[in-house]
Amino acid sequence: MPAHTAPAPAHTTPELDPRADIVELTAAFVDIESVSGNERALADAVEQALRAHAPHLEVIRDGDTVIARTHRVLDQRVVLAGHLDTVPVADNLPSARRTREGREELVGRGTCDMKGGVAVLLKLAVEADAAPMDLTWIFYDHEEVAAADNSLTRIAAEHPEYLAGDFAILGEPTSAGVEGGCKGTMKLAVTTRGIAAHSARDWVGDNAVHKLAPVLERLAAYEARRAVIDGLEFREALNAVGISGGIAGNVIPDRARIDVNYRFAPDTTIEQAEAHVREVLAGLDVDIEVFDAAAGALPGLDTAPARAFLEALGQDVRVDAKQGWTDVSRFAALGTPAVNFGPGDPLLAHTDDEHVPIEDLHASLAALRRFLTSTAG
Amino acid sequence: MPAHTAPAPAHTTPELDPRADIVELTAAFVDIESVSGNERALADAVEQALRAHAPHLEVIRDGDTVIARTHRVLDQRVVLAGHLDTVPVADNLPSARRTREGREELVGRGTCDMKGGVAVLLKLAVEADAAPMDLTWIFYDHEEVAAADNSLTRIAAEHPEYLAGDFAILGEPTSAGVEGGCKGTMKLAVTTRGIAAHSARDWVGDNAVHKLAPVLERLAAYEARRAVIDGLEFREALNAVGISGGIAGNVIPDRARIDVNYRFAPDTTIEQAEAHVREVLAGLDVDIEVFDAAAGALPGLDTAPARAFLEALGQDVRVDAKQGWTDVSRFAALGTPAVNFGPGDPLLAHTDDEHVPIEDLHASLAALRRFLTSTAG
Repeated sequence: MPAHTAPAPAHTTPELDPRADIVELTAAFVDIESVSGNERALADAVEQALRAHAPHLEVIRDGDTVIARTHRVLDQRVVLAGHLDTVPVADNLPSARRTREGREELVGRGTCDMKGGVAVLLKLAVEADAAPMDLTWIFYDHEEVAAADNSLTRIAAEHPEYLAGDFAILGEPTSAGVEGGCKGTMKLAVTTRGIAAHSARDWVGDNAVHKLAPVLERLAAYEARRAVIDGLEFREALNAVGISGGIAGNVIPDRARIDVNYRFAPDTTIEQAEAHVREVLAGLDVDIEVFDAAAGALPGLDTAPARAFLEALGQDVRVDAKQGWTDVSRFAALGTPAVNFGPGDPLLAHTDDEHVPIEDLHASLAALRRFLTSTAG
Repeated sequence: MPAHTAPAPAHTTPELDPRADIVELTAAFVDIESVSGNERALADAVEQALRAHAPHLEVIRDGDTVIARTHRVLDQRVVLAGHLDTVPVADNLPSARRTREGREELVGRGTCDMKGGVAVLLKLAVEADAAPMDLTWIFYDHEEVAAADNSLTRIAAEHPEYLAGDFAILGEPTSAGVEGGCKGTMKLAVTTRGIAAHSARDWVGDNAVHKLAPVLERLAAYEARRAVIDGLEFREALNAVGISGGIAGNVIPDRARIDVNYRFAPDTTIEQAEAHVREVLAGLDVDIEVFDAAAGALPGLDTAPARAFLEALGQDVRVDAKQGWTDVSRFAALGTPAVNFGPGDPLLAHTDDEHVPIEDLHASLAALRRFLTSTAG
């Protein structure tokens, strides 16, 4: 069994050399398999690399999360964070390099989401011993699973000081552009009731599945809002993501359900989001129940540290809204403006053909390095 | 463990006394539990009763089906058939008698569907040794399960002569009225396709669940035909009996499905039924596939033996269309006109409160006895 498919015993912790070329370092990250729940070997390697190569950092190990920070008592503290885990491997490890349509790529699970990003962070954590701001580096576990299991949930509860800062950068894939804030997400169960009956005598029953028709009609006809905040466009989305109903092939269903996912702009609270969905479905004979919700995060690009970040990156760097929900919203909830910035096309995350352009790795590293060596801070 | 919950060993075959009062005999049938697959004890009891009390009949045992017939070389042969099995017990055994709103009832699994009916058949099989027609009595197994497992499927293939006759009466519950013919049934999968995408970026996907909206609209708005055949009204029914779709709570579904059940009048062939459903859904972006179909049965009430039957029953007996699919269609397929006639309200079949009015038992017995002692035949 190759080393990357099993947690390595302690005495053979795979090594990460943060002084290596960014492509080699990313490949080393990728080749230490770390599907959610199996992050230990990679966390060990990150911890070992920091302890060995970054004497300017306090290194804290908390479960399979590694936190490293400076204590230089500067005016500002910037948090740079990335998750170590990936979604399950799809026969796409170890990593491989390829050239396609003239573009060099590193291919494999995690290359895009988000080992390219954490490789950049590790390299800079070791390198940036004289940045114009204090720095907190967070390499965390269990991001690709339920929010309750995400280690940032535990850390925010037990050690909120680890997450404290004036600005946060999440290394999530953004094709080396800046993606500000994130949309909120809400899941609702929309249920209809009827009366069961034999399907040969439907006139004594009442078909709950047929009552879904107007719900689907409204969802299909829905025109989602495009909210422009700090110059970024957040496109909302309201969708049926699941539908179910039926008792047996000869029975009129007495209950049916649509699971609706509403992705809402970060200027909208959870309460407003729920009220909006109820308004969209107003007048229909349905029960509506929210079973999951997470607020979005405003981009906060007009704050001082964010402006300094954008300035250091330069005008060539694309600035967009982040459409998917990410952990930036945890920082927003703590009052810390946060952006996503990392190598890799977010649309490739979780796909079987997950890959990262080599150029993205270099561009992300160079841009963040400019920020950390800028005089702004 | 009470005797009715386990197959009885051969030496303690529970007894059925066909000379007993019809209510006692029905209760004895009910108290020998015979959920589909567990009919042996009851089939043994029926076989034993026929061999002991009906020397005028040839008795054939075929699996857990018992067939008994006369060979008097008369002009006509009438087949009288009923199934021995029931749907699963719902804590409603043994049987009990009760009086409710002034009406006496026998309560318990199978009282309605259809041990009242088979009790009437057994009683008359023993009694009717001089009917004006040859008679074939069929007590069969595995009716309440998939058609392929129904013992009539096997017998029609291996011994079609056992089912041969000029007229057939199924003892299915009809509240002691005549229910002629039966509707056909067809099940179709209606499938939509789309493009999966992250639900935060639905504009790069195409929601297959939303595409079900016009399908449900058409089903909900559908006005079912009422076909009058031989004076009987068959009400058609077209329903979604199942609906499914969804990959995960954050993914736009790329496929969704509705299971449609069409119950069609017996003047319609399977091919015509399919064409009709395709017409109802014409123009929609869906795939339609038939995965189950069984033709209906014309009532055949204008045939000579059916007319004789109705005449013997007298004008007080209600004559309706049978809405649900029953084994009458097997006889129709063999060219034998067939009707349903038995005690019990068909709407109570399979319910937890299954019961049969005592009056229905007496009325069914008396009516069939008139037919079997008539001079018509």
